[in-house]
Amino acid sequence: MTAFTVLMAFQRETEALAQVMGRLEWDQQTVMPPGAARQRAEEMAALESVLHARRSDPRLADWIAGAAPPDAAGARALALIGREHARATRIPLRLAAETARVTSLAQGVWAEARAGDDVGRFLPVLAEVVALKREAAAALADGAEGQDARYDALLDEYEPGATAAGLAAMFAELRPRLVALRARILGVGRTPPALAGRFPAEAQLRLAREVAGVFGYDFGRGRIDLAVHPFSSGSGSDVRITTRIDEADPLGCLYSTIHETGHAAYEQAIDTAHALTPLGRGVSMGVHESQSRLYENQIGRSRAFASWLHGAMARSFGDAGAAGPEALYAAANRVVPGFVRTEADEVHYNLHILMRFDLERDLVAGRLETGDLEAAWNDRFAADFGVAVDRPAHGLLQDVHWSAGVFGYFPTYTLGNLYAACLWQALAADLPEAEAMVAAGRLGPVTGWLRERLQRHGGLAPPRETIARACGFAPAAEPLLAYLEAKFGALYRL
Amino acid sequence: MTAFTVLMAFQRETEALAQVMGRLEWDQQTVMPPGAARQRAEEMAALESVLHARRSDPRLADWIAGAAPPDAAGARALALIGREHARATRIPLRLAAETARVTSLAQGVWAEARAGDDVGRFLPVLAEVVALKREAAAALADGAEGQDARYDALLDEYEPGATAAGLAAMFAELRPRLVALRARILGVGRTPPALAGRFPAEAQLRLAREVAGVFGYDFGRGRIDLAVHPFSSGSGSDVRITTRIDEADPLGCLYSTIHETGHAAYEQAIDTAHALTPLGRGVSMGVHESQSRLYENQIGRSRAFASWLHGAMARSFGDAGAAGPEALYAAANRVVPGFVRTEADEVHYNLHILMRFDLERDLVAGRLETGDLEAAWNDRFAADFGVAVDRPAHGLLQDVHWSAGVFGYFPTYTLGNLYAACLWQALAADLPEAEAMVAAGRLGPVTGWLRERLQRHGGLAPPRETIARACGFAPAAEPLLAYLEAKFGALYRL
Repeated sequence: MTAFTVLMAFQRETEALAQVMGRLEWDQQTVMPPGAARQRAEEMAALESVLHARRSDPRLADWIAGAAPPDAAGARALALIGREHARATRIPLRLAAETARVTSLAQGVWAEARAGDDVGRFLPVLAEVVALKREAAAALADGAEGQDARYDALLDEYEPGATAAGLAAMFAELRPRLVALRARILGVGRTPPALAGRFPAEAQLRLAREVAGVFGYDFGRGRIDLAVHPFSSGSGSDVRITTRIDEADPLGCLYSTIHETGHAAYEQAIDTAHALTPLGRGVSMGVHESQSRLYENQIGRSRAFASWLHGAMARSFGDAGAAGPEALYAAANRVVPGFVRTEADEVHYNLHILMRFDLERDLVAGRLETGDLEAAWNDRFAADFGVAVDRPAHGLLQDVHWSAGVFGYFPTYTLGNLYAACLWQALAADLPEAEAMVAAGRLGPVTGWLRERLQRHGGLAPPRETIARACGFAPAAEPLLAYLEAKFGALYRL
Repeated sequence: MTAFTVLMAFQRETEALAQVMGRLEWDQQTVMPPGAARQRAEEMAALESVLHARRSDPRLADWIAGAAPPDAAGARALALIGREHARATRIPLRLAAETARVTSLAQGVWAEARAGDDVGRFLPVLAEVVALKREAAAALADGAEGQDARYDALLDEYEPGATAAGLAAMFAELRPRLVALRARILGVGRTPPALAGRFPAEAQLRLAREVAGVFGYDFGRGRIDLAVHPFSSGSGSDVRITTRIDEADPLGCLYSTIHETGHAAYEQAIDTAHALTPLGRGVSMGVHESQSRLYENQIGRSRAFASWLHGAMARSFGDAGAAGPEALYAAANRVVPGFVRTEADEVHYNLHILMRFDLERDLVAGRLETGDLEAAWNDRFAADFGVAVDRPAHGLLQDVHWSAGVFGYFPTYTLGNLYAACLWQALAADLPEAEAMVAAGRLGPVTGWLRERLQRHGGLAPPRETIARACGFAPAAEPLLAYLEAKFGALYRL
């Protein structure tokens, strides 16, 4: 057996164990009995130790050095294993264990602080988390210098190859035009009505299954369940999605289902030859989000899809809750001022992300301390959203990410939106009939274009290159701005 | 840190990972998408490798040698870890991997052979399995001599400390009196009617939940789902049960629920101080089965419980399907000749087990070869059951166990029945009001007796001692025979 064969066999087991972790997370958020939480934490910690030990196994370095990959895919897999190994070995076990302990605690404190609107309760533990993440960032940066070297080292976990400077350059175009767009829309002073009626939970779930099927979700290798915060989970032949149901608002269930179907469709489409290798998963969070956002927004919130959806909703509920397809389209694209990211419309959403990106970048670099964070948040919010934060639960305390030690993740949401708009522009040019197909609920050719151009390659190319190859051009901010300005310009007759 | 502390911390992670394996098994049999089977096999194999490596980790021997347990529970835990380590190190990795491969294949072949009633299709792969298990048995016996040394080594996995000779001595009393009892019952020529009617699945599941609650199942640390073959799964604070539903026969769902509740109640009752240690699980399959059988039969199939159950069924279904409690009691205790173990009544059940025990004991010892197995099965069946096997699917091909390489498990079913009858005798003497409580559906004092006397101790004492301590006398066959002869003698007016 060659070093490459030995390495890939070892990695296959590691990938399988990582999938097991995904099963535990799915279980925890869908079916786990409430009293099992503490024991589950120990089960997951034990499995995490096994994974960390494997990823930092000293034999990996020898196998990697001695491996002769047989082809380009093998070379790419080798590079990804080496990258994961380097990251795992740079974090001392003591720091990993301490971070796990503190963030587990911090998430509990955060939930209490949010419930009590009490920033003071949260800040001390957040300061501990930030200190640990700065230490991790310094270790991962491995001597690299520059004002964003440490933030980049964290970002690299979620979006390999991306840099804060590169993202900031793309994002810089967004902020002024988004702020201007929201001001023009709200200046119209006319918000389309939301849907009216009651939509029984069972009928919503049936429709969610139907819609996931229309978007190409393969139920033979997945399933839909309920969860408080919808997510998708797993790679290969077991990719599950979840949704949530509010009987007053069927669009919440529908669009979270379509969003998660986008994530899952990506995983399900990856070439089975890559299964249980580092190429057998979505290549980055940004690319993943490009699929979920494109399914949800460019397709799901389009005028064309609204015309199909109105019929499907009328069949499911007797009454779609909107006078016709155009009213449904308007209801699915209401632009309303609000404080909360997860409830934001397409126009406001990226403004939320841009501010979090700037704040966490400053936190990691040491240019901002947690004691000054709330003021920085509130100032920026007032500047971009035109209103003052009314309470901490609607401000600094709204997101779980930082309490969980997740820094460098937020920008991948907006990156996903940028990528989605680029892909949609390329797709529409290639498939002029796309709109008519979507209106007919015949999504096969549209999702097929994405599958062939992007999804099936998994981790074969780096993230940005994955998008550029699929689009035929380098990703940029302009397509997203053009898409939003055209769509909402027409909707609100600006 | 002392060697004992280090050892117990290591073991705690191993126990947590073993729980993870239980989650995967639960998932596989309840919610896993059909297309995920192959990937799941790899996930489970990877986790099994991790567990095997930990159990055979050479550091364990040093820690065990250097450990000074602080108390009797610590000493017992140490002994159990040592036992598991010895077993793990005796099986060479090559043999473990080959057995996993062949039994995985053999279970598929068995399923096909059973569907096609084709013994010839099954025997070659069974011969391979038997050869591997003989090799494993020899390795585990570790030089021990005697005609049953190898079978005992396999039995020891499921029922530590038990020997074939010891079981055979107890079982020898059963066979003639069971054969005689069944002949007298069937000689009466009058079988009570089964329940009549249709019992909607939803109402059955609701009643199953109610009944599990009545038997003390804690839904805060568990849940009930559907599975083709009902099972219970997990230890500590996540112990789940499954059931199955046949709309023509509500007793199938009810009694499989009660049976699995017995298993689960045992796990849920174990002192939390033992959680994630070798004492934190049921001590053996026989003791486990004693709880499930006692819940199912001595309580669930009693005249007293039938009087409560008749009311509950009438409430659940509008009509209990039986004229009154006495008719329900008779329907739940119908003695009918049949070929299949899993459908057998209390009188026939142990006759099934006794023949499998004798056959597998001869197979492992080399006194019987697979080529002669079907004839041996059919001869024995005709002798004990008074009829000839009508087709292989009703004979040698009915059980999955041997194809899965599970030898030494069957006798624990009858051992569980023996233990259950001993426990019930002791319980009834201690709690003369037990029958009245059961009739009122007030099982707390009855299950509380079991919890205090037996369940909460987990693995603290060896299996036989666990039963003897709870009963106050050494387990024997007579209580089971007396129970069956009295119960069915009265029911059939013998």
